[in-house]
Amino acid sequence: MSDRIFNFSAGPAVLPEEVIHNSQEALWNLAGSGIGVMEHSHRGKEFSAVADRAEALCREIADIPADYDVLFLQGGASTQFFMVPMNFLTPEATADYVMTGAWSQKAVAEAKRFGRVHVAASSEDQNFSYIPAPGEHRWSERPVYAHFTSNNTIFGTQWSTEPIPPSGAPLICDASSDIFSRPIDVRKYGLIYAGAQKNLGPSGITLVIVRKDLVERAASNLPTMLQYRTHAKEKSMYNTPPTFGIFVVAEVFAWIKANGGLAATAERNRAKAAVIYDYLDRSSFFRGTARRDSRSLMNVCFRAPSEELEEKFLAEAKKRKLSGLKGHRSVGGMRASIYNAFPQAGCEALVSLMAEFEKANG
Amino acid sequence: MSDRIFNFSAGPAVLPEEVIHNSQEALWNLAGSGIGVMEHSHRGKEFSAVADRAEALCREIADIPADYDVLFLQGGASTQFFMVPMNFLTPEATADYVMTGAWSQKAVAEAKRFGRVHVAASSEDQNFSYIPAPGEHRWSERPVYAHFTSNNTIFGTQWSTEPIPPSGAPLICDASSDIFSRPIDVRKYGLIYAGAQKNLGPSGITLVIVRKDLVERAASNLPTMLQYRTHAKEKSMYNTPPTFGIFVVAEVFAWIKANGGLAATAERNRAKAAVIYDYLDRSSFFRGTARRDSRSLMNVCFRAPSEELEEKFLAEAKKRKLSGLKGHRSVGGMRASIYNAFPQAGCEALVSLMAEFEKANG
Repeated sequence: MSDRIFNFSAGPAVLPEEVIHNSQEALWNLAGSGIGVMEHSHRGKEFSAVADRAEALCREIADIPADYDVLFLQGGASTQFFMVPMNFLTPEATADYVMTGAWSQKAVAEAKRFGRVHVAASSEDQNFSYIPAPGEHRWSERPVYAHFTSNNTIFGTQWSTEPIPPSGAPLICDASSDIFSRPIDVRKYGLIYAGAQKNLGPSGITLVIVRKDLVERAASNLPTMLQYRTHAKEKSMYNTPPTFGIFVVAEVFAWIKANGGLAATAERNRAKAAVIYDYLDRSSFFRGTARRDSRSLMNVCFRAPSEELEEKFLAEAKKRKLSGLKGHRSVGGMRASIYNAFPQAGCEALVSLMAEFEKANG
Repeated sequence: MSDRIFNFSAGPAVLPEEVIHNSQEALWNLAGSGIGVMEHSHRGKEFSAVADRAEALCREIADIPADYDVLFLQGGASTQFFMVPMNFLTPEATADYVMTGAWSQKAVAEAKRFGRVHVAASSEDQNFSYIPAPGEHRWSERPVYAHFTSNNTIFGTQWSTEPIPPSGAPLICDASSDIFSRPIDVRKYGLIYAGAQKNLGPSGITLVIVRKDLVERAASNLPTMLQYRTHAKEKSMYNTPPTFGIFVVAEVFAWIKANGGLAATAERNRAKAAVIYDYLDRSSFFRGTARRDSRSLMNVCFRAPSEELEEKFLAEAKKRKLSGLKGHRSVGGMRASIYNAFPQAGCEALVSLMAEFEKANG
């Protein structure tokens, strides 16, 4: 019997149990080296093998073309919010952003420090409960890039496919909360960034996948650590990288690969989300907050008829060892975050509770 | 019998074995919560307790006054190299730096992007083999701050006491490689920063101790993540912090406290370093590269009579399970990094080998 409970946390979030077991072992002694993974020089052969494995597995599972760099950085998406415009936007130029939630808003606020920002579409009019349809995107003439947030953790919405930016504008994506939850056509993107703490590993490590010609074109009069070229040239080893984080991320990539890759991952995620959404669609008590065509497979947001009932439901969930279900204050109610490593059994346990609760309180 | 070997790595470096055991346990299930430490929301009560403990223990062991903030950031010292001048230096102003090695040089290079830099003293004339004496410091008139590197990992030198900057200039220190290796009078400093991966924990987390009035005075027109005030105001929780790193650092602080605090740590470090330096002083074969009055208690650099003998010695050390002894290419020879968690038995094992080797090859 496991002493672990169902963890619906929006991030940092649940990781595969075999990844945790392998991490425990490596903390003490990495691959029989007599030294733990946290204690190895990042330039030694043992850790180099870990870093090489992380990159190779990442390239393999996401089919990343050779003309893209794969970087493991620090500072999370919040650092990418300013690094992207710092590297690519100038005062006379314009960058386009699609606003689909709190994280897009933060990205826009940082970009405005460096140049002009054009909001190509926004769902703020309906509390970010939907993804603007392609016909609603109003791009500027010649943006230096077009930025979107592929999944919106707080509002439970997700793009079903990428927006199509104006010709020549690289597409840049904050994929923190749905990276590698489904197959991705990297060639459509100029740059993809993702904080690791939802689908990839622990917090404190950021995956950046960037087309090499953009790295070369980026600003060069910046602090060394803030230039993508520094990290591309040094293969994320300009300074000491978050070595343990890289180890865990490599283990997660290996777990994805061993479980059928991104296509099989997407199938599992669809099935898991369907357990909850199907119940929501049948329920006359609970209701989902995201528009149906914009529903996230990662974060399922729903409400009960009153705040009192929501509090009661959350208290009941806690008793049943279903943790982390409280919704963000800007939506209220409940949020079930069911990233790659979250098990289907947890979705079923949640729906059982919802059905019982509805029966008792509906 | 442990399956671990003596790890003389310069960083990431050896950690206390009980810290590793506690980290292994917490990875699976933090404090009986049913959720591992990597998987907990950084805003939940379980992780908040970890973060509060890290700060409280840090304040306790280093006796940090209330008018200083304790921050846990990302990006290592390499990020502080530019964040310090970005926050405090302006184009018309001057910052003073003492140059005692490769890391000081990198700090200077980043500072020059933001304003004037005055080198108050340098030991570059003798390959950074010494710390300039107080009488050799030539400060500028009114520097906005004075920066030094308390220990020089590559060259094996260490300040025995802080430089005294001109009146009114805050002292700023890169203490990455000797933080908490001895008592520290925080009141002498405006800002202390340290990448964790030598004395404090895993790579990917940076400790910053900064006087609150400096935080308030710092530039405010910077990207949100690059302002010290952001992290001070949000107690390092503006964005998702490196949660596992904070857990490990708290465990290391608890280990320091349980082992007598910084005074007892300093005694152990003096005794450990003496084992090797005393042998070097007696040896007619090996020689230390740092000037005696500038010797580091953290990194002991030494050479043999020829590069061939050094290679032979390193090969022999490897056979005896003494790992990480190769010196940096800019000094050559050998380097024994013996941070807080490195055991005295490892220093004795090294000296035994040195004595045997000298006898056989001297």
